[in-house]
Amino acid sequence: MISVVILGTGNLAMHLTTAFTTAVDSKVLQVFGRNRDQLKLFEKYTKTTTDIKKLAIADVYIIAISDDAIGSFSKELKLKNKLVVHTSGSVAIDALENDGRIGVFYPVQTFSKDRPLDFKTIPICIEAEEKEDLLLLDKLARTISDQVYFIDSGQRKNLHIAAVFANNFVNHMYKTSFDLCVKHDIPPEIVYPLILETAEKATKLPPSKIQTGPAKRNDIQTIESHLKALTGEQRNIYKLLTETIQKSYGKKL
Amino acid sequence: MISVVILGTGNLAMHLTTAFTTAVDSKVLQVFGRNRDQLKLFEKYTKTTTDIKKLAIADVYIIAISDDAIGSFSKELKLKNKLVVHTSGSVAIDALENDGRIGVFYPVQTFSKDRPLDFKTIPICIEAEEKEDLLLLDKLARTISDQVYFIDSGQRKNLHIAAVFANNFVNHMYKTSFDLCVKHDIPPEIVYPLILETAEKATKLPPSKIQTGPAKRNDIQTIESHLKALTGEQRNIYKLLTETIQKSYGKKL
Repeated sequence: MISVVILGTGNLAMHLTTAFTTAVDSKVLQVFGRNRDQLKLFEKYTKTTTDIKKLAIADVYIIAISDDAIGSFSKELKLKNKLVVHTSGSVAIDALENDGRIGVFYPVQTFSKDRPLDFKTIPICIEAEEKEDLLLLDKLARTISDQVYFIDSGQRKNLHIAAVFANNFVNHMYKTSFDLCVKHDIPPEIVYPLILETAEKATKLPPSKIQTGPAKRNDIQTIESHLKALTGEQRNIYKLLTETIQKSYGKKL
Repeated sequence: MISVVILGTGNLAMHLTTAFTTAVDSKVLQVFGRNRDQLKLFEKYTKTTTDIKKLAIADVYIIAISDDAIGSFSKELKLKNKLVVHTSGSVAIDALENDGRIGVFYPVQTFSKDRPLDFKTIPICIEAEEKEDLLLLDKLARTISDQVYFIDSGQRKNLHIAAVFANNFVNHMYKTSFDLCVKHDIPPEIVYPLILETAEKATKLPPSKIQTGPAKRNDIQTIESHLKALTGEQRNIYKLLTETIQKSYGKKL
């Protein structure tokens, strides 16, 4: 049985708490947070504290707070010879400034408050300075997920960029798509099945093999008619992505 | 029972043929195609012909061929007082040049050869010049789908642009994301659950409410470090989309 203390009370802290609580071979001894209202939500799962000097003794301490607070927060931790990990995709391991053992425990997913997720399918990327710590994190991760990867800080930085494309930028494409629908009295729901199928497909076949559309076909007439219909940022995005796709798929310039 | 003839032998023609064949209140009398090998694949469902002068007498003729061939192909059809529709998102209704009644029957989805789809959930956008024809198309569409929408050619053009963002451009984001993974020895599968959850989420909550990431947070340090790690087209896309998201969510410039 591996014991953890969760440091933080946001969406990820909650998802981790429920995942470890449900797991057979790991458990949450305590959740620490400064926001009492937020902390209250964790009371039904485990003990809580607002006092950083009163942390329980656990095998692993998991920091799940905003990226830019990780460094300064870790400095406050006075845990001798304990493994402290952060959960961020974009922060290097050495941002942790506590005395002692450090590591990373990064679940690659977008977490929201009211959307339950099956942790079993969520990839967890782990990193540690010491081999025994890496093995401990591997064991811990496998108590809640079937997909565990050793990813070092250099790789994780690039994985985070890849996630920005796959999540942040894709979400902005969805927004643009829905904005266009609403502007022209088209119910955005019409696009939902297309969105879901496009995502599904990318997990089965290489996206380069299934690219379609006016840019891929180099259908100049349609591209020009679309550009004429668009303005501002939407037009800029359409233009750049069309040119990029044309180049990727061998349009001779 | 509404009878149809399918004109074309591509992916969409096949998906429509199987959908109408399975439907209770519609049937495919015949499939026409010039490519004998392709046409062979339809023989187990219905009659086929390579002779455009020997089309069966049906209620609706559905052209499922490439966009730029629709106009010239429709001219060849000698069908007096029969409803002829095309299936394209990007072609106006009046591109049809046959004598007689015309319409559009546009399923908003991306069709591939080997991926079965549940047509019930695929939105079908219909248009016709005559009211009776619109009602006939509505009835026909409802034999295979639960989602039928009246969308005129002006709206459909914009819907097609919205689909370019939601499908073509999103797929290119996936490609870029996977390219980055592969380049840095990261298994692209790590990003799959993120992709699926991002898509699911967009169908439940407005994308503007769930936008996250360095651009949304206006996290200049991370953005600059990402830009430094990227080159070429990937960098250009990152830059433009980041600026656009920053502007959308109220960064003061």
